[in-house]
Amino acid sequence: MNQTPSKLNILKGLTHSHTHLMKMFLTILFTFALLFSSSQASVQDFCVADLSLSDTPSGYPCKKPSTITVDAFVFSGLGVAGNTSNLIKAAVTPAFVAQFPGVNGLGLSMARLDLAVGGVIPLHTHPGASEVLLVTQGSILAGFISSSANVVYYKTLHKGDIMVFPQGLLHFQLNSEKIPALAFASFSSPNPGLQITDFALFANDLPTELVVKVTFLDKAQVKKLKAILGGTN
Amino acid sequence: MNQTPSKLNILKGLTHSHTHLMKMFLTILFTFALLFSSSQASVQDFCVADLSLSDTPSGYPCKKPSTITVDAFVFSGLGVAGNTSNLIKAAVTPAFVAQFPGVNGLGLSMARLDLAVGGVIPLHTHPGASEVLLVTQGSILAGFISSSANVVYYKTLHKGDIMVFPQGLLHFQLNSEKIPALAFASFSSPNPGLQITDFALFANDLPTELVVKVTFLDKAQVKKLKAILGGTN
Amino acid sequence: MNQTPSKLNILKGLTHSHTHLMKMFLTILFTFALLFSSSQASVQDFCVADLSLSDTPSGYPCKKPSTITVDAFVFSGLGVAGNTSNLIKAAVTPAFVAQFPGVNGLGLSMARLDLAVGGVIPLHTHPGASEVLLVTQGSILAGFISSSANVVYYKTLHKGDIMVFPQGLLHFQLNSEKIPALAFASFSSPNPGLQITDFALFANDLPTELVVKVTFLDKAQVKKLKAILGGTN
Amino acid sequence: MNQTPSKLNILKGLTHSHTHLMKMFLTILFTFALLFSSSQASVQDFCVADLSLSDTPSGYPCKKPSTITVDAFVFSGLGVAGNTSNLIKAAVTPAFVAQFPGVNGLGLSMARLDLAVGGVIPLHTHPGASEVLLVTQGSILAGFISSSANVVYYKTLHKGDIMVFPQGLLHFQLNSEKIPALAFASFSSPNPGLQITDFALFANDLPTELVVKVTFLDKAQVKKLKAILGGTN
Amino acid sequence: MNQTPSKLNILKGLTHSHTHLMKMFLTILFTFALLFSSSQASVQDFCVADLSLSDTPSGYPCKKPSTITVDAFVFSGLGVAGNTSNLIKAAVTPAFVAQFPGVNGLGLSMARLDLAVGGVIPLHTHPGASEVLLVTQGSILAGFISSSANVVYYKTLHKGDIMVFPQGLLHFQLNSEKIPALAFASFSSPNPGLQITDFALFANDLPTELVVKVTFLDKAQVKKLKAILGGTN
Amino acid sequence: MNQTPSKLNILKGLTHSHTHLMKMFLTILFTFALLFSSSQASVQDFCVADLSLSDTPSGYPCKKPSTITVDAFVFSGLGVAGNTSNLIKAAVTPAFVAQFPGVNGLGLSMARLDLAVGGVIPLHTHPGASEVLLVTQGSILAGFISSSANVVYYKTLHKGDIMVFPQGLLHFQLNSEKIPALAFASFSSPNPGLQITDFALFANDLPTELVVKVTFLDKAQVKKLKAILGGTN
Repeated sequence: MNQTPSKLNILKGLTHSHTHLMKMFLTILFTFALLFSSSQASVQDFCVADLSLSDTPSGYPCKKPSTITVDAFVFSGLGVAGNTSNLIKAAVTPAFVAQFPGVNGLGLSMARLDLAVGGVIPLHTHPGASEVLLVTQGSILAGFISSSANVVYYKTLHKGDIMVFPQGLLHFQLNSEKIPALAFASFSSPNPGLQITDFALFANDLPTELVVKVTFLDKAQVKKLKAILGGTN
Repeated sequence: MNQTPSKLNILKGLTHSHTHLMKMFLTILFTFALLFSSSQASVQDFCVADLSLSDTPSGYPCKKPSTITVDAFVFSGLGVAGNTSNLIKAAVTPAFVAQFPGVNGLGLSMARLDLAVGGVIPLHTHPGASEVLLVTQGSILAGFISSSANVVYYKTLHKGDIMVFPQGLLHFQLNSEKIPALAFASFSSPNPGLQITDFALFANDLPTELVVKVTFLDKAQVKKLKAILGGTN
Repeated sequence: MNQTPSKLNILKGLTHSHTHLMKMFLTILFTFALLFSSSQASVQDFCVADLSLSDTPSGYPCKKPSTITVDAFVFSGLGVAGNTSNLIKAAVTPAFVAQFPGVNGLGLSMARLDLAVGGVIPLHTHPGASEVLLVTQGSILAGFISSSANVVYYKTLHKGDIMVFPQGLLHFQLNSEKIPALAFASFSSPNPGLQITDFALFANDLPTELVVKVTFLDKAQVKKLKAILGGTN
Repeated sequence: MNQTPSKLNILKGLTHSHTHLMKMFLTILFTFALLFSSSQASVQDFCVADLSLSDTPSGYPCKKPSTITVDAFVFSGLGVAGNTSNLIKAAVTPAFVAQFPGVNGLGLSMARLDLAVGGVIPLHTHPGASEVLLVTQGSILAGFISSSANVVYYKTLHKGDIMVFPQGLLHFQLNSEKIPALAFASFSSPNPGLQITDFALFANDLPTELVVKVTFLDKAQVKKLKAILGGTN
Repeated sequence: MNQTPSKLNILKGLTHSHTHLMKMFLTILFTFALLFSSSQASVQDFCVADLSLSDTPSGYPCKKPSTITVDAFVFSGLGVAGNTSNLIKAAVTPAFVAQFPGVNGLGLSMARLDLAVGGVIPLHTHPGASEVLLVTQGSILAGFISSSANVVYYKTLHKGDIMVFPQGLLHFQLNSEKIPALAFASFSSPNPGLQITDFALFANDLPTELVVKVTFLDKAQVKKLKAILGGTN
Repeated sequence: MNQTPSKLNILKGLTHSHTHLMKMFLTILFTFALLFSSSQASVQDFCVADLSLSDTPSGYPCKKPSTITVDAFVFSGLGVAGNTSNLIKAAVTPAFVAQFPGVNGLGLSMARLDLAVGGVIPLHTHPGASEVLLVTQGSILAGFISSSANVVYYKTLHKGDIMVFPQGLLHFQLNSEKIPALAFASFSSPNPGLQITDFALFANDLPTELVVKVTFLDKAQVKKLKAILGGTN
């Protein structure tokens, strides 16, 4: 029982009897139970998205904390390679709030990038977030274009390198080696958005004439890419 | 002197003599002078940009309030038509923080858009702000492209119409009539940025081969637009 | 068929047959459809207000994107002159989130100001936003009062001039010429609020005695303005 | 009727007849009623929490303004002393958003701290807010620990002193005199959170072995505190 | 030495000799010294204002952490009663960033309100912050006016009561009893600002004619209050 | 030369001669040069930290864009394994703003975690950021403790798994296998801070008596850990 003295040392001014200690323990448990039960409704350490409710400008409404388990905070989808058997020989696997509701309201999210040999993530922006890219396999040529003087910042990233892409700026990534590349992107928002310029221009019903006017591209070029990407008009 | 009673009504408990009133006035002036002088350094109603100092993520450091006159809060540059004798037959005149230091830290700014007949503001984004466009003369065909499903939202705006363009999304404006058009854009940031896609791609030294890879454009198309817009490589 | 080579140049390593190309197109469409459909719920480029739901501190919950057309982003109400046949010979026509749900969550909104000859927008504040005023017709004497040393900043604005009013500060606008004036105000919030000092003091049931105490105004003055503005008590 | 001239002085250009004045009054009332009724839905000066709805990252949805009385903005719970008959001889009475829905969305909240003789608020953090502590009775030894170099900042605070504790940093308060102490804490969030280190470690089912590994504490020490604080495993 | 086993239990895989332990201690100290020295420049737990440098929109630049002592985080000025021998029989003692540099960047500040018998804090706003008022002595009649429908929310607060005043809205406090009252206000910003309507209107050189036009007050009323509050023109 | 027609198709209303085209090109270049040069000072796409200047609440002042190269946006330090030959058999290599100035103002940063067999990142918080952890090698047992009801959320993460840790909450990571583990943490701030509870308590001069009082730990336990971690007093 040589622990009792030091404990009682802490609890100066209290008597030592076990009976008293038990009462004391019950009291403190009761007190903190009260404190915590009364403030429980307000203590919002996290806000796991309830995707069944309407989104708001700050994110989705929260699920009740009592229904949450650790699985709400863990996402295993980035462990699986994306299918790169496509035109761009690349795949983006997002862990945004829609796939990973645990990041709702927490100001960040992630995505996995698989780039087969020759793969490319075409020119795109994230309207709602900055990005840091971490290369974990192979080499990736990545770059972004500043808006002020159209300066281009690009470099070949090797395993372990990270590169930051400021919010909203056009950027791209492409496999610069003869082996597949793998990278993970982190974003400063649970919902960064992804606007691929080619798809914005050529994969919808925006009239060819209008695309020509706002891009200076040749009409034939526009029609060709619309055909490839499934656009109409 | 029938004003005195009502005033004294306010100042219950004070005697009425002019001598006393004078003392009281001096006291209050002194008191508030104290209050205000002591808090003067801290009261920052505004933060007019001192462009000679380094910018920060929240904006430029502030000029001393004592050096500020009303002219810091007024900008007349938007009253002058921009020169539309150019390829796009259009001109953008910004009143961002660099031109109008009074908006620093206040969360908004403006720009003037002049579109001659056939004029177009090519596809572009503002990485740092949403925009509301107000047409004050002529008609403008304006639109933006959402990132989720590449849906295009566009419409012809007439005098008095306003349209909102969400932050970071690709959008465009073009004169849709046979008379010059005039519009004013408001932004949700003192420094919205402006990234014109064509200039980002073709007006710099980004290698042609790289542009081809990240856009799927034909090499000839890229070279042609680089020639027009002054790009190299 | 002279387009094929350059396209295939892009798509290195793929064979050229049309059959193959069709498959490739289907693949990419399928791939991106997958990407986009999976992330569709999360990609929130905008958040058009669903005014039928409860507001939140960050704005209204969003309508479903699939129900949105371009009309949600366009507002024509500012094209109509306000009725200035009233005491202040002026009218404010708001395009805040309640009138223009498309600005919800986007950090800005607008309003139209009509000032007949002699018209005035009385002393007021916007508790939730800074403002930039653009004069498009006539001349307006506008000013604001700083809180630190009660310095007044005011100036006559002419067509094309803009003036910024920092958030929460008392300001006013009045027609300073013999012709009607027109101006457009932009705000740094979808919901800037509008507190006209006179209406806050005299157009409600705040007891006269209390108004006198907190303003130092004469009781008769308070009663007179309460009568004009419809206040009681 | 000597008030009329000065009023008409204000209303230059209007005729004076009472009939006309009445019409004018009705007009202005009607005009402003229109203005206010149309913008009523959008004017959100405050957002009293509707605790029956799901929380969001920015706070709870708002109750309808028409259902709000002044009592939503007043909280009397801090006027009652907390029960300090417990192990820590102290009590924390929160006025966070769950107890005081009026602070929802307004960026601040409060709490009352009662410290009996020997009382202590054990080492804790507020994950979501900075704190300012105001001592109104007795003396309190308060301190916090910086994260950079583990520097400790602590001092005995007397009646009228305030001390600020930066967001998320470990801090503590204890009664340093022989009389009860009373203090009020203000927080920079309606929902600051409260994580008491001892309770986080010892008042739950976190396995003892795990606690030992992540804290370097002796197993016996962990088991002892788990027993006191009601933890298991 | 029965503590050693449990400690070694923690440090599995290490041998027990004191020599070894000393080496281990040196290693860990060295390791963490490295970690902390390398990250020291970046770890900004707080940002005590360097008032000698220019303010920025986010607050003042920070003093070097190495020059900071606990006194930067403690302010004793609110322990001293303000001088209420003045017209308003009241005094406001601020602990804003200018008086209390430790709150810089932390999102909150405080002030002390002394109200003698009959004292009043006249109608005012804080353009940059919401406020919670805590009454610690006497009783205070406090209220604010909403902007939407000019609804007034007011109530007599007693010792221990708190009331919240939403950002930017007109509000007032007055002593409602026959004994002095004391209260402490907390703000949701280190720099809330303070705009007293009467001082904004009557304590400066804003021309009387202009005040009349934007307030509908009688000219005589304006001149009278200008005389009392030291205004000119 | 079959491209010319389509280009001229774009440039309707312009004559086709090469001379004219050259003039036009010069005009557009000049026009945009004007636009960009005038707005250059204001266009702040990024804000690479100038660590030689004082930090501010929003981050460091920016280096001049003209001095920035791509290397400001790339960091290679995370490619090097940390030294895990220490007490905790683990190493944290930060890429916060102090090490990686390119993330300044962009709302995110990263760090590398090396955990040797038996390695542990002891209980800690990041006062200024939420974290997402990505396991790229081995397995890691990770968890956090909520503040509301002291609920513990923990799970063994395998390669490719990610887990989110809400801002400011206590959490830990430990190698749960017999091979070294590697992980990368992303943070929602360029400067998340790192407060290791043990170091905050035992690695400084905080008096033992005080540690005992605010933690309920036995005095001997405190002294023992102070000895291990280099604390005094």
